[in-house]
Amino acid sequence: MKKSVSGCSVEEAILLVGGRWRMLIVSFLLEGPKRFNELRRDVPNISQRMLTLDLRALEEAGLIQRTVFAEVPVKVEYRLTDDGQRLRPVIHALREFGLWLKERDRP
Amino acid sequence: MKKSVSGCSVEEAILLVGGRWRMLIVSFLLEGPKRFNELRRDVPNISQRMLTLDLRALEEAGLIQRTVFAEVPVKVEYRLTDDGQRLRPVIHALREFGLWLKERDRP
Repeated sequence: MKKSVSGCSVEEAILLVGGRWRMLIVSFLLEGPKRFNELRRDVPNISQRMLTLDLRALEEAGLIQRTVFAEVPVKVEYRLTDDGQRLRPVIHALREFGLWLKERDRP
Repeated sequence: MKKSVSGCSVEEAILLVGGRWRMLIVSFLLEGPKRFNELRRDVPNISQRMLTLDLRALEEAGLIQRTVFAEVPVKVEYRLTDDGQRLRPVIHALREFGLWLKERDRP
């Protein structure tokens, strides 16, 4: 996991959950556990490769848990851990800001 | 300004203030107005070009205001607008998460 140079907490958070998709992935997982293909549908325009990499990074950081079910075809599910749930206030604030922004910029 | 495909508010917010630096720039401007070189010092490892582009994008979105003072040498100052102040809860939540993360991962 990348470390911030500055020691700044905001930067520390951004290094982990910044970027184009990770916060969005977490926001969908706040609704409950999801399978890989559900996340691919939820997150617009994300490639299979990027989704795989982002999920792996979030898993390595302990924010999500990946469970493989011994079924045929194999079922893989992703869910937020308790640590991952700590992003809820961030997502909530982002959503509020996004809502306000859409309202302001409505044509 | 890029628009979200999904209409999702979280995505809308991320398109504007996601990425490696913008939220960090806003967090420093929450402290008060800053000059370009102050921001370059604050934001670790950012290039002059990226800082310029990010400041311009934030200005175009109406989140910051750029003021040029008629002095020699010319003084340029950036400050958050009232609209930009709406990011305060997002930054606050990110900072809380970053603080918790640093504490958790302390060696």
